[in-house]
Amino acid sequence: MKELYKGKVKTVLQTENPDEVLIRFEDKVTCGNGKHETHIPGKGEINCEISAILFEKLHRMGIKNHYLNRPEPNIMCCERVEIIPLEVVVRNVATGSIVRETTIQEGTRFCPELIEFYLKDDSNNDPLLTPDRMNLMGYDVVDIRLFKGMAYEINVMLKEIFNSIDIDLIDFKLEFGYTSRGEIILADEISPDGCRLWRKGTTESMDKDLYRKNTGNIMEAYQQILAQLK
Amino acid sequence: MKELYKGKVKTVLQTENPDEVLIRFEDKVTCGNGKHETHIPGKGEINCEISAILFEKLHRMGIKNHYLNRPEPNIMCCERVEIIPLEVVVRNVATGSIVRETTIQEGTRFCPELIEFYLKDDSNNDPLLTPDRMNLMGYDVVDIRLFKGMAYEINVMLKEIFNSIDIDLIDFKLEFGYTSRGEIILADEISPDGCRLWRKGTTESMDKDLYRKNTGNIMEAYQQILAQLK
Repeated sequence: MKELYKGKVKTVLQTENPDEVLIRFEDKVTCGNGKHETHIPGKGEINCEISAILFEKLHRMGIKNHYLNRPEPNIMCCERVEIIPLEVVVRNVATGSIVRETTIQEGTRFCPELIEFYLKDDSNNDPLLTPDRMNLMGYDVVDIRLFKGMAYEINVMLKEIFNSIDIDLIDFKLEFGYTSRGEIILADEISPDGCRLWRKGTTESMDKDLYRKNTGNIMEAYQQILAQLK
Repeated sequence: MKELYKGKVKTVLQTENPDEVLIRFEDKVTCGNGKHETHIPGKGEINCEISAILFEKLHRMGIKNHYLNRPEPNIMCCERVEIIPLEVVVRNVATGSIVRETTIQEGTRFCPELIEFYLKDDSNNDPLLTPDRMNLMGYDVVDIRLFKGMAYEINVMLKEIFNSIDIDLIDFKLEFGYTSRGEIILADEISPDGCRLWRKGTTESMDKDLYRKNTGNIMEAYQQILAQLK
């Protein structure tokens, strides 16, 4: 099958149906924007299943997204979308880059949640965008409000989902895409690779920070999350 | 004299008067946030004189700033201020980091000018701030509007000053400080180290980009600017 796009840990494959693609989750984890990479057998399958479960739950809660089905353990069949080259980051608690890049204290709770935009551009380390820069890039106030509105709704739902399995949702990254009908829907993946998930009431990571900071086994943590989400 | 602060190319010295400091401009140029550094005899004196002339002109145009007098060729006597740890960048034309970090085309003219804020934090490469981040750091809407208003006025004046010597003011960086009376005034320096200055109607740099890109002699360019400003 023809590769349409090869990301750091996912490969997008063409299908016979022009409105569908297959997304293969690879057995890899990377950090530092691909500077570090480790092969982890079985990781692709776990992330694919977590993502599928979360997309199904969000769909039932009214959030349109690209997920259709999972023909193989590590492969998702999805509606084909044109990815909007923005990373939409929702932060409930201050940690990670925002703490390094501001004077905001680690652990600060954001009320309301902070919704930030980054340019999807690996070669430049996904730079942070300001509203002015987004306007100049052609995103108008209505676009930005739409992304924020969807991110806000998804945050409410994901917080509830994770809360029900005793996990605090600290922050997460979303990507959106245009369908062939011109509708904006949620795309990409939602997995512990792109979320910060802390064991409820603690600062114990159950996400990719275990790999970034080399403080634990991501497979154990991801497997626990998957088992609880099922 | 006691050193109060040692920057990359300037040293702030205490004086007997608690409301005044001396700022010594060193014979150095740096780039890449101090990664590259070159000793250039006479550069401190030129930048000090250019800054003094621009501060005097701005003062006459109604912009309060810290400059008092120039007791030595490379030393400014200034009102002592507490520097606000923000870099306020005014952009008239897109070039440099904004082109790398967005999809905005090199050479795009901003109408109105774009005013951006960076955290003054060398150890983290002076990260870009969003209005949300600034609010969370304790700067309220009124503070931001004040900085923007001052930057806007200064841009009008500097554009006029540089235009009169056949130079296009592309972008520049400002810093502000609180006086002991709690007033916010313009501080730091205004020199070709912190401005992009292009020969009128061309893209020929007369500023630190000559050093950053190794495309010419900054001393010749700075000397020309000084001679024309006098």
